[in-house]
Amino acid sequence: MNRSRNRDEEREPGQVTRLFVAPALAADAEIELDEEATHYLRHVLRLEAGDRVGLFNGRDGEWSAEILGLSKRATRLALREQTRAQKAEPDLWLVFAPIKRQRIDILAEKATELGVTALLPVFTQRTVMTRVNLDRLAAHAKEAAEQTERLTVPVIREPQSLDKMLQTWPQKRRLLLCAEAGPARPLVDALAELTRGRDVRNRNESWAIMTGPEGGFTPSELDALGKLPFVTPVGLGPRILRADTAAIAALACWQALVGDGRDRPPSR
Amino acid sequence: MNRSRNRDEEREPGQVTRLFVAPALAADAEIELDEEATHYLRHVLRLEAGDRVGLFNGRDGEWSAEILGLSKRATRLALREQTRAQKAEPDLWLVFAPIKRQRIDILAEKATELGVTALLPVFTQRTVMTRVNLDRLAAHAKEAAEQTERLTVPVIREPQSLDKMLQTWPQKRRLLLCAEAGPARPLVDALAELTRGRDVRNRNESWAIMTGPEGGFTPSELDALGKLPFVTPVGLGPRILRADTAAIAALACWQALVGDGRDRPPSR
Repeated sequence: MNRSRNRDEEREPGQVTRLFVAPALAADAEIELDEEATHYLRHVLRLEAGDRVGLFNGRDGEWSAEILGLSKRATRLALREQTRAQKAEPDLWLVFAPIKRQRIDILAEKATELGVTALLPVFTQRTVMTRVNLDRLAAHAKEAAEQTERLTVPVIREPQSLDKMLQTWPQKRRLLLCAEAGPARPLVDALAELTRGRDVRNRNESWAIMTGPEGGFTPSELDALGKLPFVTPVGLGPRILRADTAAIAALACWQALVGDGRDRPPSR
Repeated sequence: MNRSRNRDEEREPGQVTRLFVAPALAADAEIELDEEATHYLRHVLRLEAGDRVGLFNGRDGEWSAEILGLSKRATRLALREQTRAQKAEPDLWLVFAPIKRQRIDILAEKATELGVTALLPVFTQRTVMTRVNLDRLAAHAKEAAEQTERLTVPVIREPQSLDKMLQTWPQKRRLLLCAEAGPARPLVDALAELTRGRDVRNRNESWAIMTGPEGGFTPSELDALGKLPFVTPVGLGPRILRADTAAIAALACWQALVGDGRDRPPSR
């Protein structure tokens, strides 16, 4: 995916350009960016030697880096100071049946903005899509992370069948199953009960939200999932939500209620 | 906007086609649909005389109707029985600064799925868009309402300036201002406080959620809004959300916490 030419219209005035990079980030380090990033810095943002950008790699916090030079193929940068320290994030996976192209793009972007730590595509009985473009999902996730002030980018897992995923599911990770049919508790009530008596902002817990394909889960899938000890079926209200909307709504509520919804964005 | 050819792939097996129509719906009534609806029924859904569809108009509940005949230009239907009664909905407006085309489409669709009763475009200081295609927004809202089991379609208001809108704001309607900067309480805490001691599912209350354009509200807008007695600035967590994501997240949390999030979809 090409970086959007419009990206920079979407910045607040004065907002710094943030790039997710692979190398270690530390005081006085110099790093080099590849051709794609260079093209973006030169021709979209029109940056030049002496300009500053923010860098993060998911491990070493965020750093202010000065552009030393841009060639046609590469950009050299020198790290100046750490602007934010890395910190723990709520551990929330999104397990989702692959949906059609535009909607899976929306899903990857919004899920990243809403702080998921991993995206796990899973093939269910009614899943129409037979393959998932993981590079495309990763590109959307990276761009959303850069824009959203995150210090991490979600991991994108290889797609697998629902059965296979459940066989290796980490039993301590609570799986909230978004279920439009069958028995389910309202998401708010389920979260209140699951976290009763504990610090709801305890970041050492592992959670996941699962949503189905366009046609929903089959009755037999809902039945089998409902019997698993780590699964809690939850309801999202009286309207039948599209697959992407259901995922976004559940992630937003989870972050607001038991994730980091009480934190504020970093001030610039 | 043309109806999507893919719409019907997105139905659950057995799900009925639902259409939003203008005429009154009552026992034994016959109604006629226009050319666009007829094209959709004939050539996309491939329905014929004798087939059933669901109809709703925002006032008379949902009715099962039998197709009496389809010509090239019109469809005649006879109403058979009421399948759901009209009922009150939570009264929630979305006030939003117009954003770019693809994102405003997403916003109209998702806001409708999440049950807003009105969409109010408002021009703020950093709004880049200078006009809003209201027909396009209305078409997205109608299609989303048809798909999502709603019995209403949100009203789309004429765009106006923020100042003008505030001058005529109904003082009893609480406006939750999604604010990424400046003082703001977490949405969950603000809602808990605003509804303390009352039945949170009281449907007679009026609420609104407001989101800014791509570049956010200006400090002076946030300052002025924060002084209004009907405004409560709210925070949506530590990540800077895109304008459409912020609206969707806030709407989802509002419905889950003080709207109809505890209801279940109608069973078919």
